[in-house]
Amino acid sequence: MRKNLDTTLYFITDSTCVPEERFLPVVEAACKGGATIIQLREKDKSTREYMRLATATHEITARYGIPLIIDDRVDVALAIGAEGVHVGQSDMPAHLARKLMGEDKIVGVTAKTVPQALEAYEQGADYLGCGAIYPTTTHVNTVITPVETLKDVVKAVPIPVNAIGGLNKDNIFVLKGSGIAGICVVSAIMKVADPETATRELKQAFLEL
Amino acid sequence: MRKNLDTTLYFITDSTCVPEERFLPVVEAACKGGATIIQLREKDKSTREYMRLATATHEITARYGIPLIIDDRVDVALAIGAEGVHVGQSDMPAHLARKLMGEDKIVGVTAKTVPQALEAYEQGADYLGCGAIYPTTTHVNTVITPVETLKDVVKAVPIPVNAIGGLNKDNIFVLKGSGIAGICVVSAIMKVADPETATRELKQAFLEL
Repeated sequence: MRKNLDTTLYFITDSTCVPEERFLPVVEAACKGGATIIQLREKDKSTREYMRLATATHEITARYGIPLIIDDRVDVALAIGAEGVHVGQSDMPAHLARKLMGEDKIVGVTAKTVPQALEAYEQGADYLGCGAIYPTTTHVNTVITPVETLKDVVKAVPIPVNAIGGLNKDNIFVLKGSGIAGICVVSAIMKVADPETATRELKQAFLEL
Repeated sequence: MRKNLDTTLYFITDSTCVPEERFLPVVEAACKGGATIIQLREKDKSTREYMRLATATHEITARYGIPLIIDDRVDVALAIGAEGVHVGQSDMPAHLARKLMGEDKIVGVTAKTVPQALEAYEQGADYLGCGAIYPTTTHVNTVITPVETLKDVVKAVPIPVNAIGGLNKDNIFVLKGSGIAGICVVSAIMKVADPETATRELKQAFLEL
């Protein structure tokens, strides 16, 4: 089932980047600035804390009509009624995430190679995240994905492919002509003083590529 | 729905206690020794690694007809078809775990006080784990539950209550007359040279209380 899905500006949160009281305001700023899809990504929280933050985040994103995707945790996504889940290569295999989430929910997959992309598509992924295009501070041991590989992934599957990894408005020019559907960013929104303007400028820069 | 559930000897695994190649043999030894229910508890594994270990463990427990309970992760339990899930006070609330797992699966809850026990029962718990009775090396910052509190919990709810926390065959005498349905152990099986005999002796010691 091909979904109506706008991945143009895909904001991935990281609560460890900001003081606790700033987290939800940054989410709302990204909504106001034009993020089209938002992923909550937490690695060190208990299930209950993850659920609390997911519920609070969902209250904001739902108000703006922006789908909320939960990283890794299908149980958290189901429990709080999020619009989808995103799974990486060390998370639940996509076909099981799809089975548990149901056909109507969004399932995204990280795919760094064409074989991974084809597998994810066959297993029911709605979109792919592909990278890292540039080194990133929000993952350890980043492996760089060449833009040529990104282009091959885009050609290999009929679903939206987003680029990810160290992207900002000044370096996304390398993605021109790659055929990607959008860009995923963490730091470029999470770590800036004015996340609303940053979101707006990032989206504009991508649309003008 | 009251289930047929034998919690007499409830073995909780901890893969960090043993070399990797010894983990599944210990599980099988516990099955042979008479464990009546087994919980897989992993705190630091990726979802995919948790699923792999859960699948391998389930292959053994299923052969012995022993229910496998997954700690914390409803998604892992659902994905691998485990018989149930166990949630603590920082995991998913019991009523949501019950909703996602369905009526037929086992949902266990950690309850350290009578109010927590009543809440868990009202939210659909099939059994409770209550403790720690003794200090334990498998949790940090253990809070001791007095045996009097354990007795109050047993009286408060009409479902099986198990004692947990540092229990072994030489110290469970304090549980005599408490009305518990069984005992939960980690180290007393996981960390011994002969886990099959240890399981058998623990079960016998509990039955003779």
